[in-house]
Amino acid sequence: MSVRALFAKAQGSAIRELGLLAQEPDMVSLAGGMPDPALLPLAPVREAYARALASDNPSVLQYGPTDGLPACKEAIAGFLATHLGPHGPEDWVITTGSQQGIDLAARTLLDAGDTVAVEAHAYPAALQAFRFCEARIAGVAADEQGMLPQALADLAGRQRVKAIYLVPTYGNPTGALMGTQRRIELLKAAASAGAVLIEDDPYRCLGFDEAAAPPTLHQLNEEHRLGAQVVYLTSFSKTIAPALRVGALLAPPALRRAVVLAKQAADIHSGLVDQGVLVQLLRGDWLAGHLAALRRHYATKGQALHAALQTHAADLMSWQPPRGGMFIWGTLRGKAPAGTDWKALFREHRVLFVPGREFSADGSDAGHLRLSFAHPSVERLHTGAQRLARVLRQALRTA
Amino acid sequence: MSVRALFAKAQGSAIRELGLLAQEPDMVSLAGGMPDPALLPLAPVREAYARALASDNPSVLQYGPTDGLPACKEAIAGFLATHLGPHGPEDWVITTGSQQGIDLAARTLLDAGDTVAVEAHAYPAALQAFRFCEARIAGVAADEQGMLPQALADLAGRQRVKAIYLVPTYGNPTGALMGTQRRIELLKAAASAGAVLIEDDPYRCLGFDEAAAPPTLHQLNEEHRLGAQVVYLTSFSKTIAPALRVGALLAPPALRRAVVLAKQAADIHSGLVDQGVLVQLLRGDWLAGHLAALRRHYATKGQALHAALQTHAADLMSWQPPRGGMFIWGTLRGKAPAGTDWKALFREHRVLFVPGREFSADGSDAGHLRLSFAHPSVERLHTGAQRLARVLRQALRTA
Repeated sequence: MSVRALFAKAQGSAIRELGLLAQEPDMVSLAGGMPDPALLPLAPVREAYARALASDNPSVLQYGPTDGLPACKEAIAGFLATHLGPHGPEDWVITTGSQQGIDLAARTLLDAGDTVAVEAHAYPAALQAFRFCEARIAGVAADEQGMLPQALADLAGRQRVKAIYLVPTYGNPTGALMGTQRRIELLKAAASAGAVLIEDDPYRCLGFDEAAAPPTLHQLNEEHRLGAQVVYLTSFSKTIAPALRVGALLAPPALRRAVVLAKQAADIHSGLVDQGVLVQLLRGDWLAGHLAALRRHYATKGQALHAALQTHAADLMSWQPPRGGMFIWGTLRGKAPAGTDWKALFREHRVLFVPGREFSADGSDAGHLRLSFAHPSVERLHTGAQRLARVLRQALRTA
Repeated sequence: MSVRALFAKAQGSAIRELGLLAQEPDMVSLAGGMPDPALLPLAPVREAYARALASDNPSVLQYGPTDGLPACKEAIAGFLATHLGPHGPEDWVITTGSQQGIDLAARTLLDAGDTVAVEAHAYPAALQAFRFCEARIAGVAADEQGMLPQALADLAGRQRVKAIYLVPTYGNPTGALMGTQRRIELLKAAASAGAVLIEDDPYRCLGFDEAAAPPTLHQLNEEHRLGAQVVYLTSFSKTIAPALRVGALLAPPALRRAVVLAKQAADIHSGLVDQGVLVQLLRGDWLAGHLAALRRHYATKGQALHAALQTHAADLMSWQPPRGGMFIWGTLRGKAPAGTDWKALFREHRVLFVPGREFSADGSDAGHLRLSFAHPSVERLHTGAQRLARVLRQALRTA
């Protein structure tokens, strides 16, 4: 299919369209993955901009290196050293949000017709990036720890798999946390398949228990010399502010060089003032305290939504209690009919969530939904769970 | 050729690599297209950041619309209304620099094997974006007004041309200014070929005589109802600051929607604080005065380099006196041998410029060079012209 035909067919992000509905009066949105506005650190960010621009050297406004400000890459390497091992600034590429990391990795790795493996339910904007490369997207079976290594090995036995995309730590959409042993097995399967593993890791710092997250796939691969190729992506959109669009990509040298070439053509470089701001925010003690507050806050909210669902929706769906990130993944007890008009139900009952089909490679899912507890207040989460139950009852009754 | 093979073959931007040489002691760089640091408006930008973040509404740090902040699009539409006619914010997409506009337009329009027409010498990062789409790049003959409409029509008679890429106003690399009649003829040829015309217009506000630039291709197309499809790209990298990475794209509705879908997958949206800063800077009178100062300053420099070349290099090359933008395009009186080691000559004589081959689709040119007068001081431009003459004398002698 031609790229133009792909665009004619493309639906755009349903989640971003739900964002418009979220503006309507008295709507409780459990849809988007947006940070809680109360946790956006306006005063520290404001001060960081002032400090980043305090020098009288106008070079802060000039063109900069395609792979990013060395000081920014060094600060990120230091910040993530406990999760990734020691790295120098030369190992990193700053990206325009981690979404650009996904897109650049996809464009560098995937030719038309190539297969990329994803979990049966995956982040829609990654699926979109893979579709625009005209890649074949293979949904691989997953459980509450994420992708099953044997299912990946089976796929790789049937066809060449070029890349594997995972959010293994408090995943989007499932919230799943992949354990250490599962990670090692998956890395072995990836290495054996000769597939590059894209580890998208924006939620790592949002674990309710800071110590609960296993090491990154990148680090396990290095430590155990498993021989996989891992592209690691991080983001500050969930921990500092989405508006800044600062993400970063860590990749083996040959791949990193190709990504830098792709980035030259994509946008020359990412915003430099925002990179300077990140340098300011990663210095000193502020971020550690901020992340601790985020963890407590989102833990309270995640537990509140979990409790409200137990009260109102336990007969309608099952789910795992959240341990981090922003999402609860519901498995319906029954299936919503194919033609369910979710938008009409959302409008009627004043609640939003994302139907599971948005996360499946072929848009076929009818038995799941994603709930985000990040944005509404605890009180609104309770209201949202009540309304969700009404929506599901109506949808399943017509089934 | 596969995308991976393309990346293995890709050389990266020679101009950005010359940037490293430019850091060496006593080097005069006539290579890059970077603004003069003395003209980067640090104090107004600093104040604009403070104003953009002055509100206590944390939504300035939240995710935003993929097509950009409405206030930013409205400010750009107003700023460019005299050059483009009336447009609403809904007609625009904010891009991460105008480079992203080129890349998104390319990805939306071009399938593998499609032909994109460019002038015989064209902006290398656009060529790179087209190459990564696996497009066929056809260099079309040009004169001192840019692309020849008959040559475009001849090409379109031989094969389907999907897109045409032009910098018609103080072009990069040639500095050429396309006259009104030529623009109309070219639009007719584009319309007749059914090709989308990408009008890349970052230098429009840098005409030495503000009144000299003809209307945009976009505006002529509308006014004369010529029936071409025009994608118009603007940038604030040359007029305010490259570091901000704020550009914008204006396109017919169906194309614009496809570009927005591509941008969702590319980076979700561009930096919002930078967009808010642009809103601040486009308000009030500051920008008009700043642009007047830029025009005077670059006119002085362009004329200084022109005069210095007349003194030192008239026997070695010919060129048109610059009328705007940042570049003088030299046509050598003779050809440099294919194996000329320009880097060694640059190192020996302490001057940098960009050999013409970097701008030709097939890398074959041996008879041109691009000189930028934007960055060095007037005194250094004189030194640079003297040194340039030594480099050329040595290169042509060995021919």
